[in-house]
Amino acid sequence: MHILVLNGPNLNMLGVRNPEIYGKQTLGDIEAMLRKRLAGTDIKMDFAQNNLEGHLVELIQKARGKYDYILLNAAAYTHTSIAIRDAIEAAEVPTVEIHLSNVAQREEFRHFSYIAPVCVGTVTGFGVYSYLMALEYVLAKDAEKVNKDE
Amino acid sequence: MHILVLNGPNLNMLGVRNPEIYGKQTLGDIEAMLRKRLAGTDIKMDFAQNNLEGHLVELIQKARGKYDYILLNAAAYTHTSIAIRDAIEAAEVPTVEIHLSNVAQREEFRHFSYIAPVCVGTVTGFGVYSYLMALEYVLAKDAEKVNKDE
Amino acid sequence: MHILVLNGPNLNMLGVRNPEIYGKQTLGDIEAMLRKRLAGTDIKMDFAQNNLEGHLVELIQKARGKYDYILLNAAAYTHTSIAIRDAIEAAEVPTVEIHLSNVAQREEFRHFSYIAPVCVGTVTGFGVYSYLMALEYVLAKDAEKVNKDE
Amino acid sequence: MHILVLNGPNLNMLGVRNPEIYGKQTLGDIEAMLRKRLAGTDIKMDFAQNNLEGHLVELIQKARGKYDYILLNAAAYTHTSIAIRDAIEAAEVPTVEIHLSNVAQREEFRHFSYIAPVCVGTVTGFGVYSYLMALEYVLAKDAEKVNKDE
Amino acid sequence: MHILVLNGPNLNMLGVRNPEIYGKQTLGDIEAMLRKRLAGTDIKMDFAQNNLEGHLVELIQKARGKYDYILLNAAAYTHTSIAIRDAIEAAEVPTVEIHLSNVAQREEFRHFSYIAPVCVGTVTGFGVYSYLMALEYVLAKDAEKVNKDE
Amino acid sequence: MHILVLNGPNLNMLGVRNPEIYGKQTLGDIEAMLRKRLAGTDIKMDFAQNNLEGHLVELIQKARGKYDYILLNAAAYTHTSIAIRDAIEAAEVPTVEIHLSNVAQREEFRHFSYIAPVCVGTVTGFGVYSYLMALEYVLAKDAEKVNKDE
Amino acid sequence: MHILVLNGPNLNMLGVRNPEIYGKQTLGDIEAMLRKRLAGTDIKMDFAQNNLEGHLVELIQKARGKYDYILLNAAAYTHTSIAIRDAIEAAEVPTVEIHLSNVAQREEFRHFSYIAPVCVGTVTGFGVYSYLMALEYVLAKDAEKVNKDE
Amino acid sequence: MHILVLNGPNLNMLGVRNPEIYGKQTLGDIEAMLRKRLAGTDIKMDFAQNNLEGHLVELIQKARGKYDYILLNAAAYTHTSIAIRDAIEAAEVPTVEIHLSNVAQREEFRHFSYIAPVCVGTVTGFGVYSYLMALEYVLAKDAEKVNKDE
Amino acid sequence: MHILVLNGPNLNMLGVRNPEIYGKQTLGDIEAMLRKRLAGTDIKMDFAQNNLEGHLVELIQKARGKYDYILLNAAAYTHTSIAIRDAIEAAEVPTVEIHLSNVAQREEFRHFSYIAPVCVGTVTGFGVYSYLMALEYVLAKDAEKVNKDE
Amino acid sequence: MHILVLNGPNLNMLGVRNPEIYGKQTLGDIEAMLRKRLAGTDIKMDFAQNNLEGHLVELIQKARGKYDYILLNAAAYTHTSIAIRDAIEAAEVPTVEIHLSNVAQREEFRHFSYIAPVCVGTVTGFGVYSYLMALEYVLAKDAEKVNKDE
Amino acid sequence: MHILVLNGPNLNMLGVRNPEIYGKQTLGDIEAMLRKRLAGTDIKMDFAQNNLEGHLVELIQKARGKYDYILLNAAAYTHTSIAIRDAIEAAEVPTVEIHLSNVAQREEFRHFSYIAPVCVGTVTGFGVYSYLMALEYVLAKDAEKVNKDE
Amino acid sequence: MHILVLNGPNLNMLGVRNPEIYGKQTLGDIEAMLRKRLAGTDIKMDFAQNNLEGHLVELIQKARGKYDYILLNAAAYTHTSIAIRDAIEAAEVPTVEIHLSNVAQREEFRHFSYIAPVCVGTVTGFGVYSYLMALEYVLAKDAEKVNKDE
Repeated sequence: MHILVLNGPNLNMLGVRNPEIYGKQTLGDIEAMLRKRLAGTDIKMDFAQNNLEGHLVELIQKARGKYDYILLNAAAYTHTSIAIRDAIEAAEVPTVEIHLSNVAQREEFRHFSYIAPVCVGTVTGFGVYSYLMALEYVLAKDAEKVNKDE
Repeated sequence: MHILVLNGPNLNMLGVRNPEIYGKQTLGDIEAMLRKRLAGTDIKMDFAQNNLEGHLVELIQKARGKYDYILLNAAAYTHTSIAIRDAIEAAEVPTVEIHLSNVAQREEFRHFSYIAPVCVGTVTGFGVYSYLMALEYVLAKDAEKVNKDE
Repeated sequence: MHILVLNGPNLNMLGVRNPEIYGKQTLGDIEAMLRKRLAGTDIKMDFAQNNLEGHLVELIQKARGKYDYILLNAAAYTHTSIAIRDAIEAAEVPTVEIHLSNVAQREEFRHFSYIAPVCVGTVTGFGVYSYLMALEYVLAKDAEKVNKDE
Repeated sequence: MHILVLNGPNLNMLGVRNPEIYGKQTLGDIEAMLRKRLAGTDIKMDFAQNNLEGHLVELIQKARGKYDYILLNAAAYTHTSIAIRDAIEAAEVPTVEIHLSNVAQREEFRHFSYIAPVCVGTVTGFGVYSYLMALEYVLAKDAEKVNKDE
Repeated sequence: MHILVLNGPNLNMLGVRNPEIYGKQTLGDIEAMLRKRLAGTDIKMDFAQNNLEGHLVELIQKARGKYDYILLNAAAYTHTSIAIRDAIEAAEVPTVEIHLSNVAQREEFRHFSYIAPVCVGTVTGFGVYSYLMALEYVLAKDAEKVNKDE
Repeated sequence: MHILVLNGPNLNMLGVRNPEIYGKQTLGDIEAMLRKRLAGTDIKMDFAQNNLEGHLVELIQKARGKYDYILLNAAAYTHTSIAIRDAIEAAEVPTVEIHLSNVAQREEFRHFSYIAPVCVGTVTGFGVYSYLMALEYVLAKDAEKVNKDE
Repeated sequence: MHILVLNGPNLNMLGVRNPEIYGKQTLGDIEAMLRKRLAGTDIKMDFAQNNLEGHLVELIQKARGKYDYILLNAAAYTHTSIAIRDAIEAAEVPTVEIHLSNVAQREEFRHFSYIAPVCVGTVTGFGVYSYLMALEYVLAKDAEKVNKDE
Repeated sequence: MHILVLNGPNLNMLGVRNPEIYGKQTLGDIEAMLRKRLAGTDIKMDFAQNNLEGHLVELIQKARGKYDYILLNAAAYTHTSIAIRDAIEAAEVPTVEIHLSNVAQREEFRHFSYIAPVCVGTVTGFGVYSYLMALEYVLAKDAEKVNKDE
Repeated sequence: MHILVLNGPNLNMLGVRNPEIYGKQTLGDIEAMLRKRLAGTDIKMDFAQNNLEGHLVELIQKARGKYDYILLNAAAYTHTSIAIRDAIEAAEVPTVEIHLSNVAQREEFRHFSYIAPVCVGTVTGFGVYSYLMALEYVLAKDAEKVNKDE
Repeated sequence: MHILVLNGPNLNMLGVRNPEIYGKQTLGDIEAMLRKRLAGTDIKMDFAQNNLEGHLVELIQKARGKYDYILLNAAAYTHTSIAIRDAIEAAEVPTVEIHLSNVAQREEFRHFSYIAPVCVGTVTGFGVYSYLMALEYVLAKDAEKVNKDE
Repeated sequence: MHILVLNGPNLNMLGVRNPEIYGKQTLGDIEAMLRKRLAGTDIKMDFAQNNLEGHLVELIQKARGKYDYILLNAAAYTHTSIAIRDAIEAAEVPTVEIHLSNVAQREEFRHFSYIAPVCVGTVTGFGVYSYLMALEYVLAKDAEKVNKDE
Repeated sequence: MHILVLNGPNLNMLGVRNPEIYGKQTLGDIEAMLRKRLAGTDIKMDFAQNNLEGHLVELIQKARGKYDYILLNAAAYTHTSIAIRDAIEAAEVPTVEIHLSNVAQREEFRHFSYIAPVCVGTVTGFGVYSYLMALEYVLAKDAEKVNKDE
């Protein structure tokens, strides 16, 4: 099994930007946390961050037939990108929507999500653990598949 | 650490009701899945289901000072019970809201949640794995606490 | 053929409560009236009443695979219980909604029914005869089935 | 004379839950306060608390012909239960509506009462003394009856 | 401790007006009832009725520094008098709002109270006993004070 | 037969105030006009005016059991006094509402009458003749009664 | 020249009620301030306070032909009394509306004045000096008259 | 103490324009009236009229540190000049808003005042005496200050 | 007969400003055109332009008793000056409102005229001929008067 | 090259008025800052402030053919003067709109600008440097012209 | 001091696209113009253009801790990019918003700016010189800092 | 003649993505279909696809002066990109807007097109034939041009 954890615009600033608010953990810390969780499993994980809407579109497209799951924190593009929505539909790879904060408690323009309706589900408001929880879904689906295969 | 996984009305029908849609997994399977995940940890879990609003209220009340976390799938009562909301506030135990299906894609009357404002966060739409993901949050918080204690 | 006649909250008070208004007939009288109509047929009937939303949920759940029809007078829960609605959907037993009074002529809060959309149909406002009319539907469906089988 | 003091959901948490806000007095203290008041009278009091809507319905039904008055703090069910309203009407036992706090000063969804129109009257906003004041009504009605009988 | 029981317009007609509806008890009976209740206590009570808005204003003003509590049935002026509201605020004496009938069940123009927001609480709908119940609040507060003093 | 003609605030100023508008006729002239009409009948009439809401309340209260009809021009209090309305109900004397001017053609705040619903009827806008017309009603009812008695 | 300074409900509490807010000056101080100002003039001043709407109505009526000016602080009745408005019109004595505070900055129900349209003008917001300023108007009109007469 | 009485556009026409309506008094008469009132006091008064918005702005600016009070009748500019409002704020001299007529009874566009929110209070509707009344406020504040100083 | 033709802000720029749009005719040309029309009559004309709102106010004020008609092109002040409106009312000289362009076809803020309601009438949109047309009105009124005098 | 820096109403108060808010810099300081910047260039600058709308209109008109650029801070007139807008159009001198503060963050009535659409552009929110930035535009256009001429 | 001048989509077409409208100057000319202005100062400038939203996001992120000011012409992304807004907030570098044209005079969808609320101020409508003017702000702040340091 | 067929985000997935819905034809098939139609003509065609908004902007920019027509299927960017709109305007190459599906029949957010106003026209909803129809327009314009040249 192969998964892609994909992070959108400005998430590379995590831990650097207002650490007193967002905490000191960086994307690197999140990746390490996830890899630690995957240790000893057969699951391969690619972890990427990209600030370009089009690159995110292509990374999602290329996931088709290559990845079994996408864990996507689309950040600001969640609210403005129809192209990413279309890419998720086209890739036909089950995608989990992740948010660090509870977006419903922020500015009005962050309340609408273009991608929610084309995702499997959403994990919202648990900080960096939102990623871990999304990963657990993948692990569970993997175990399920293994069981079926046996 | 001690956690309570609490299930609301009709969830005892899981696996029996429309298996072609909801899958063949029962609440027993969910419990087994969670216990398997907890194997080898010090975390104790109580797992309950109840069809009565008032019994759920009492189970939540009794969680006070006994459990560290509640994982709650309030099912239909999510949308009609002020009593369960009051119980969560009175119990003062961090509670994670769980839904099997993506409630935002269902009938209008399932879009409002009386309990969301008094919960830590929400995991929506991942079927039985929504439970596992919520458990992962607990495990992560536990590990965090252990690290701090050392 | 086996049918369940299920009565919701406060219907055990029928005949006792305001006899000058609701008549002197009790639930027992209604049951007798229905049994008299079934005399000479092969149809078996169980007749029950319960005041707890959660118990009604469970009685409906247990009807699955056991009864061919449910005749349900959910009384006050008609207007407040999503849990009973979900139970009807889970049980997959054709259900007829019954009301003694014409709920549309009573308080505003009695005009909405959560269960109507998941029932076969509704019989409202004919007093104790509402039950008899619902039973006639069952008898008609039974005759239809017998004809087909022949 | 025989009265029933009936308490709804979460009132068993009184004194335990946020004592700095709701005070340290428990339901037991309220019961003791009422019993002390009744000392030396012929009035018997049953004091109950129940978290289940359906049990409250039945306790009210059973009050018919047994109790002379019900003192009812329906708590959260005040705003969601038509079944309790119907039970009060069916029991034909004069019922006094009690609230510890001034519900009109809380969340919008607590402003509406399903039961107020079928109660004798309402005592609102006097803390634990709301119960004592309701009891005084019963004592006064009792004395009135005694006087008539003599 | 010294209390003032103050009655507004038309309450002098009590007992005379529609005795089959309002009962035969007069204001004098209410006063006697209250005095009987106070017998053996140190609490002094002044009891007054007045049909003039301005006289009620003055009686409330003069309560300042003289009375510990006012039990006020403002009757029709409840809904029209800003002057009485201003007097209650100026007097700085804790005031209990009393109504014989359940005003919420009467004409729309009786649903609004100018004085409720400046009173301790409200006792509504218990006929002449609404007064006795309000008095019980005063007695309870008095006992509480005595206990503290000891 | 005994009737009371009762005049509210500022009507004592009639004839003095803006005679070019309201005419030169005073309350005394109105009284004379009415007495002239009653000459030769057995009907006794008391004629009064008062500027105080509370005094009008009391004059109406005292009419109970003493007068057969009240002819009431409540003037400004028509639009602001619930207390006078309550007094009319308490007195149980058939009351005729009278206005000199057509209040519907004046300021918006004079369009609503608190007392109309508890009066027999209203005579509005005929100047001093409004009183005479009201008296004709009394005479007609008197004749009706005499006929019945014979 | 003869003037009437007329104060409405609760103004007798001035200086007593919340002195830290309204200042320590009483109605007596205001009267003294005005008398001091009138010293050495031929102007006679009557200074009155009354809490009764009807008495205020009569005091205004009696001002007709007796007083040259009324200085009126109608307090709470400003917003509820049509009778006082009618009295001002009937008295045909020029009336000055006075307010201590800026009523437009208080509760919504104090923003509307029944009497403003029938007064000469309004002095608002200058504390006790609002009275002195109103008096100056009278003095000026008096001087004007004296000049004309000479 | 030094005060500035400042008059806006068209007020130089006073006495000339519609004398049958506005009276025969001119601005000169107003000035004389005010000077007469100030005779024998230590208060110096400058009296000015200007038809130009900008000149009024400058006269107000120059009041800064020179005058203790401004008595301002901004006439038509009351409703259109943000520049005069800004000048009052910049000058930091307490300003009393004056109007000859009752502006609230005139055209809709005269109901809004740009300057009211930055003034001490308002005197409206007393003709030329509105000025004298405003002056009385200044005299009273002056006397108050003298008393404090002694 | 004596008339004043008065031009407001920026009209001194006529002929200079955008000649390709507004034509090459200057105010001087307009004056010449009007004088030519008046040749051989007894009518005297003064012709003025001013850019200051306050100066226009004063020129209009001074027209009082001196001119029989004012022909006024208030330009931009038409839409913002209540002061000029007041001056026209004060001057009591019949005034004709003139505009070169059709203001109704220009920006929204040019559609409202403060002065129209106090003018005899308005001539809009005929370019320089708007002035000539206004003059024709004066000539017609003059002829009318001459006829009457004869 | 010759430029006019023109300042509107109340800007002469800069540095004097609320220095703790607006800073201690005066218009003189701004002029010095600009002259310092122009030192060694051939550009002549006239620097003016005027509180009169009409004078500003004339100063702008006279700029025609004399100045190459106007730097205009119209202050309060920005929001009320159509005459200044018309003058800018008539003068045909490129004009730069300047604001010290961010007007969009102040009172609602300061959000609209009559002059913005007829200016070259706007510099908003940079304090006294807004002027320097506007001057830079002129210097750049001058250099551009010099280059073309060479 | 180090500054970044950052240009958004299509600005690389400057000078090529509609030179008769936008002029012949290219981004290269703008850069040269700015460098010329900076000649002889210690201020270093990086100048960049990018058509990709994500690249702009990254260029702004990298400005953190490296540049003292950003001069940003976000062009079309001004109106559609939440990601750029988030980058500006994350970078914590003071940013000046620049527009070549007056966006308020263009299509409705260009009137809203996602970035304005997180910028220091705005320079709009001066063509290529908008950049130079923004630079002048930086130079002025630099000089101010130098002065303070000395 | 030289044309550019440009395809936006996710169109590279055509034929791969949901072939049962969108058909099995790929972009390569579309290109082949168009080349077949152009066989025997002098028209050259370049055919491209790109997922990045910024790259599409650049491809359109580079079309300037090189291509005679652009056939553009901007896909999701149609609804969100002002930058592509600006690029089309800058390129000054006649552009035809193409959509495979009928966007008006899809989600609300696909109904608005930023680019339609700057394109020659739009062809929507004909599947792959939308491209062929757009090409027919080019062929027709080419024929028209040839005819003119002859």
